[in-house]
Amino acid sequence: GPTGFGIKSADGQFEYSLKGLIQLDYRQFDNPDHLANSDDGFTARRIRPTFQGTLFGKYDFRFTPEFGETDNTNTGTGNISRVIDAYVDGRFDPAFKIRAGKFKPFVGLERLQGGGDIKFIERSYVSNNILPNRGLGTSVYGDLLDSKLSYAVGFFNGTNDGGEETTRVDANSDKDYTARVFTTPFKGSDSVLEGLGFGVAGTYTNSSTGTLPSYKTPAQQLNFFQYTTGTVGDGTRVRVSPQAYYYYGPFGVIAEYARVSQEVRNAAGTVNDTLKNDAWQIAASWVLTGEDASFKSVKPKNPFETGKDGWGAWELVGRYQENNIDSSAFNTASGARFANPLTSAKEAKTWGIGLNWYLNQWVRLATNYEQTKFEGGGGGTLANIRDRDDERILFSRLQFQF
Amino acid sequence: GPTGFGIKSADGQFEYSLKGLIQLDYRQFDNPDHLANSDDGFTARRIRPTFQGTLFGKYDFRFTPEFGETDNTNTGTGNISRVIDAYVDGRFDPAFKIRAGKFKPFVGLERLQGGGDIKFIERSYVSNNILPNRGLGTSVYGDLLDSKLSYAVGFFNGTNDGGEETTRVDANSDKDYTARVFTTPFKGSDSVLEGLGFGVAGTYTNSSTGTLPSYKTPAQQLNFFQYTTGTVGDGTRVRVSPQAYYYYGPFGVIAEYARVSQEVRNAAGTVNDTLKNDAWQIAASWVLTGEDASFKSVKPKNPFETGKDGWGAWELVGRYQENNIDSSAFNTASGARFANPLTSAKEAKTWGIGLNWYLNQWVRLATNYEQTKFEGGGGGTLANIRDRDDERILFSRLQFQF
Amino acid sequence: GPTGFGIKSADGQFEYSLKGLIQLDYRQFDNPDHLANSDDGFTARRIRPTFQGTLFGKYDFRFTPEFGETDNTNTGTGNISRVIDAYVDGRFDPAFKIRAGKFKPFVGLERLQGGGDIKFIERSYVSNNILPNRGLGTSVYGDLLDSKLSYAVGFFNGTNDGGEETTRVDANSDKDYTARVFTTPFKGSDSVLEGLGFGVAGTYTNSSTGTLPSYKTPAQQLNFFQYTTGTVGDGTRVRVSPQAYYYYGPFGVIAEYARVSQEVRNAAGTVNDTLKNDAWQIAASWVLTGEDASFKSVKPKNPFETGKDGWGAWELVGRYQENNIDSSAFNTASGARFANPLTSAKEAKTWGIGLNWYLNQWVRLATNYEQTKFEGGGGGTLANIRDRDDERILFSRLQFQF
Repeated sequence: GPTGFGIKSADGQFEYSLKGLIQLDYRQFDNPDHLANSDDGFTARRIRPTFQGTLFGKYDFRFTPEFGETDNTNTGTGNISRVIDAYVDGRFDPAFKIRAGKFKPFVGLERLQGGGDIKFIERSYVSNNILPNRGLGTSVYGDLLDSKLSYAVGFFNGTNDGGEETTRVDANSDKDYTARVFTTPFKGSDSVLEGLGFGVAGTYTNSSTGTLPSYKTPAQQLNFFQYTTGTVGDGTRVRVSPQAYYYYGPFGVIAEYARVSQEVRNAAGTVNDTLKNDAWQIAASWVLTGEDASFKSVKPKNPFETGKDGWGAWELVGRYQENNIDSSAFNTASGARFANPLTSAKEAKTWGIGLNWYLNQWVRLATNYEQTKFEGGGGGTLANIRDRDDERILFSRLQFQF
Repeated sequence: GPTGFGIKSADGQFEYSLKGLIQLDYRQFDNPDHLANSDDGFTARRIRPTFQGTLFGKYDFRFTPEFGETDNTNTGTGNISRVIDAYVDGRFDPAFKIRAGKFKPFVGLERLQGGGDIKFIERSYVSNNILPNRGLGTSVYGDLLDSKLSYAVGFFNGTNDGGEETTRVDANSDKDYTARVFTTPFKGSDSVLEGLGFGVAGTYTNSSTGTLPSYKTPAQQLNFFQYTTGTVGDGTRVRVSPQAYYYYGPFGVIAEYARVSQEVRNAAGTVNDTLKNDAWQIAASWVLTGEDASFKSVKPKNPFETGKDGWGAWELVGRYQENNIDSSAFNTASGARFANPLTSAKEAKTWGIGLNWYLNQWVRLATNYEQTKFEGGGGGTLANIRDRDDERILFSRLQFQF
Repeated sequence: GPTGFGIKSADGQFEYSLKGLIQLDYRQFDNPDHLANSDDGFTARRIRPTFQGTLFGKYDFRFTPEFGETDNTNTGTGNISRVIDAYVDGRFDPAFKIRAGKFKPFVGLERLQGGGDIKFIERSYVSNNILPNRGLGTSVYGDLLDSKLSYAVGFFNGTNDGGEETTRVDANSDKDYTARVFTTPFKGSDSVLEGLGFGVAGTYTNSSTGTLPSYKTPAQQLNFFQYTTGTVGDGTRVRVSPQAYYYYGPFGVIAEYARVSQEVRNAAGTVNDTLKNDAWQIAASWVLTGEDASFKSVKPKNPFETGKDGWGAWELVGRYQENNIDSSAFNTASGARFANPLTSAKEAKTWGIGLNWYLNQWVRLATNYEQTKFEGGGGGTLANIRDRDDERILFSRLQFQF
C-alpha cells in the first residue's frame, strides 16, 4: 500500500520494509564544455534502494546501497555501486541509543535531512565542503526533556572535510570524535516558536598523516580550491558548527555555519600552520499552496491528477551561501605555502533560487538556478591574480521517493 | 506464489515486487587459449535482481542492478556491480507516457526483448555492435490506434555503437535523439498475419568529440574491428534500423537491419570521412512441443517433473547474421586512414543453431553453436591480408527467471 | 515475524525471502601503524543482504551481494560491491542435487559454516590460505544412508589457495575438480557420539598458467608469505583436507587439516619443483550458559533485556592453528628459487581466545585475542634471517543476522 513494501509481525516486535529513492537530474551550465566536467547532460544523482527493519522490538537495521553516479565527474569507471548507509541501532531507552556502522555522523543539520527531503538539488558548502558526510564508527545518542533536547557523541575512523568514509579498514589509527546538542525548546507548545530548533556540533581529531580535502563548486563537479600536492594534515582538526531551523506555517528557514581549524604541513615539511576555513548558508522556503513547511519533504494536500482539480504542492526556495579559505593557505610572492592562488580561489559566494513541484507524496520535480562568484583562482600572475569565471547553473531533477 | 514476491494494495493503486534473472554460462571455443579472452569456462552472464512497482496508480519504477560479469573479458577487477536499469514512468495516458532514467532506448527490436527472453545466448551484431544498448535520458512514448501503432521519441546523453551509458554525468554536451514507430496492424484479428509486427527506428547526434566503438565477435569476448588510437567521431552520427517479427503458432522469425553513418577524423586531424557500417540478422524459432511462439519466453504446457510425464518445452532456433565495415575505414598501401586491416576484419558472417529446453516457466537450459567467418584482420601484409581465424563456439546456459 | 521477511504460496511450492548479515568490526593491533594496513579502526567486515527462494517446489535460488570491505586493506577504491553467492539448486532427489553458479565449493569444513555462524572473528589458515573460498561452476551433491553420509563432486573455473573466483570468464581453460565425503555415523542416535562428524575433501587441477597465492596473517590485512614475482603454477595442484567436528552438550570442537601440493616454475623458467604447503587448526568452544553447541550459531534460551532477567548466551572459544610453507620454496645462499626468506616467513603459529555474547538470536558481540609467531621473513641476511615480528591483535565485532 501507500505505506510501502513491508511486513510487520502480529506483536509488532519485528518489522521489515523495502524503500527507494531515485533522482534523475539534467544539468545545464552557462558555458558548457569550457572546462572538463562541466557539460550539459543527464545524471542519475541518487539510486538508493533501502532495506530496513526492526528485530526483537528494539534493534533496528538499515542498509542502503548507492547505485547512482559516485563522484559527479565523468572520469572513473562509473556506474559502480557502493554502500551509502549500513548501520544497526540498539534503542535501549529514548535517552540512550547506540548506533554502529556506516551512517551520517550527528554533526551537520542540513546533512541530517534525507537526500530526498533537501530543499535544493545540491546541499550547501557547509554540508559538502566542511562537515563530514558519512562516517564508519559508533554513536551514543538520545532524546531528553520530553524530546526537547537531543544529544549525540560519536567515535569514527574519521574523514576529511565533506568526506564520506568507506566501509574498509582505516589508513591510520587516529580516530575522530564528534558531539552535538540540538534543542527544540517550544516543541509541542502552541507558541509561534514551536517550530524553532537550534544547536551546535563539532568534531575533533589529531593525526600526523591526514589527507586534505578539495572544495567543490555548487555544481559538485569541479573543485575551486585544492591544496598543493604533498601538503598534509599534521596535528589537530577541529570543526564547530552552530545551526538552526525555524518553520512556521508554509514558511521555513535553515541557517548553518561551520568552521574547520586544521593544522597542515607543506610537502617539504618546512612550513606548518593552522588554517581556518569556513562556510555558511541561509536558505528560506515558502510553500505556495499552503501546506506546512518542515524539516521533511512537503506532502501535498491535493495530488496532481490529469483531468482533476489537484495540482500538487508548489514551493519556492532561495539560498545564499559562502565558502572562505584562510588566506594563510596561499603561496605569496615571498614563498611557498599550501595552495596555488592562481588555480585555487580563496572565496566563493553563491545565491540561488528554486522551484519544487510535489506532484504527490512520491513524485517531485525541481529546478534550481545558482550563480557563484569566486575571488582568485582564475590564473594571471601572483602580482595580478584573476578571478575564476562565475559558475551559472540551471539544474533540474525528477525524484521518486517511496 | 508463482506470481512472484510482491504485494498490492487493496485499491490496486500501489504495487511492489521483487524479481530475478540468473544466467550461468559455460563457454567452449574450438581453439581455446590461442587468443586472450577465448578460454573455456564458466561465466555468470547475468545476475539481475529487480525491484519494481507502481505508485499512486500511474507512476511506475524499475530498478535492476547487474551483478554478473560486466564486460565479458577476464581483465578488469571483475565481480563489481552496476545499475543496468533504473527508470520511472508516468503513464498519463496510453498514448502519452514519459519514461526517465537509465533504460533501453526504444530503438532495436531484439534489444527490447528481455535478457531472459532472447532466443539465442547472445544477441546479434545489430544489437551488440550497431544500436544503443542502454541510455540515460528520457522518452515520450505511447500506443495509438487500439494499440496497433506504438511510437517513441527520446533524448539521451548518448552512446557509441552497441554501447551502454553509465549513470554519471556526460563527457560532452551533445545529446542523442532517438525515434521509433512500430506497428502490429493485424493485432487482435484472426488473420494469419495476426503475429506480424514491423517498424523502423533511428538515432541522431552531432558531436566533435565522440568516442568510437569496437565491434565484438559473437562470443562477446574479443573485438574483430577497432579504430586506430586517436580516431574520433567528429560530426553527425545517424543510425537507421528497419525491423520486423512474425509469429505463427509454434513458429517465429525476427529480422532486423541497422546502419550507422558516422563522421570520423583521424588522430592527426588530416583525414575526415563519413563511414557507413551496417549489420543484419534473421533468426527463426520453432517450438517442437507445440506451444505458441512469441516475443517473450516460451511457457511450457507440461513442466518437466522427474517421475511424471511432462518434459517441458523444446525449441529449435537458427540464425544468420552479418556485420560489415565501410571499406573506406581501412588504411591502404597509399596512406593512413582509420583502422588497420591487418588486425581489424572488414566483414563478419555468422550462422548459428541452438536448442532451448524450458523445464518450466522459470528454468531454462540452452545450447548454441555458432560459426563466424571473417574477411581480413588476420595479419599478413597490406598487399596480402590474411583472414582472421574462424570463430567456432559452443555455448551453454542455465537460466532462472522469476 | 521472527522468521524474517518472506512469503510462501499456499501450496508451499513457492517461497521467497530477504535476509541479511551485518558485521561491524573494531580492530586493534599491538603495534599499530608500524606496518601499512595494520592500523586500529573500524571496518564493515560483511554487509550481505540475501534474496533467496524456491520455485516450483524443487528449484532454489540464492543471491547474496557483498557490500562490506572487499580485501581488508585500505588500498583500492573501497566500498564497491560484488556478488559473493549467486547460485541455483535443482533438488531432484535427496541423494541427487545439482548446484550451479557462484558458491562455496564443498571442500573446507569451517568454510561451510556461515559467515555469521563461525566461532572466531576470522576463519583459520585452513580456510583462508589453503582451501578455496568461492568457486564458479557446478556441483552434484546429496545425502545418503538416512542422511548419515553426504557427498559432493564439483567442476569449477578454479582458484588459487584461499581464493574467491569472480563471476567473469576464466583466464585459462584448465578447470578445477573437487570432491568431498562427510559422515555423521551416529546422527539421530542417543550415543555420546551423536554429534560427531568427519570426512575428507580434495581438489585437483592441472594448469601451466596458474596464478599463485599469498598467505595472510590471522588479521587478514597483511601477507606473511608471497612468491617472487614471475613465479607461476605450472602443472598439477592437489589439495587434500581431512576434517572433523564433535558437539556434546555445550561443548564443541572442530579440527581440520589441509595440504596443497603445487607444481611451480620460477620466473626465468629454470627451476621447477612441487611445493607442499599445509595448515591445520583445532578450535574448541564452550557455551557457559548451557545452550547446546552446534555447527550453527547459538540460540540463547533467555535473551538479554534491560530490566529483565535474561542475559543472553555466553560462549568461550579457543583455537590453535599453524601454517607451514615448504622449505624448498625459499631462495638460499646457493641460488634463486620461489620466495625470498627475508620477506616471507616459512611458518606461522597462532593461538587465540575469544568470548561471544549472543544477546538474542539476531544480535551478537564478539571479542578475540590472537597472537602469532613467525619463523623467518623479518629481514636480516640469508646467513642470519630474522623472524617477522609477532602479530598480536584484539578484534571486536558487532553482528546482526536475520
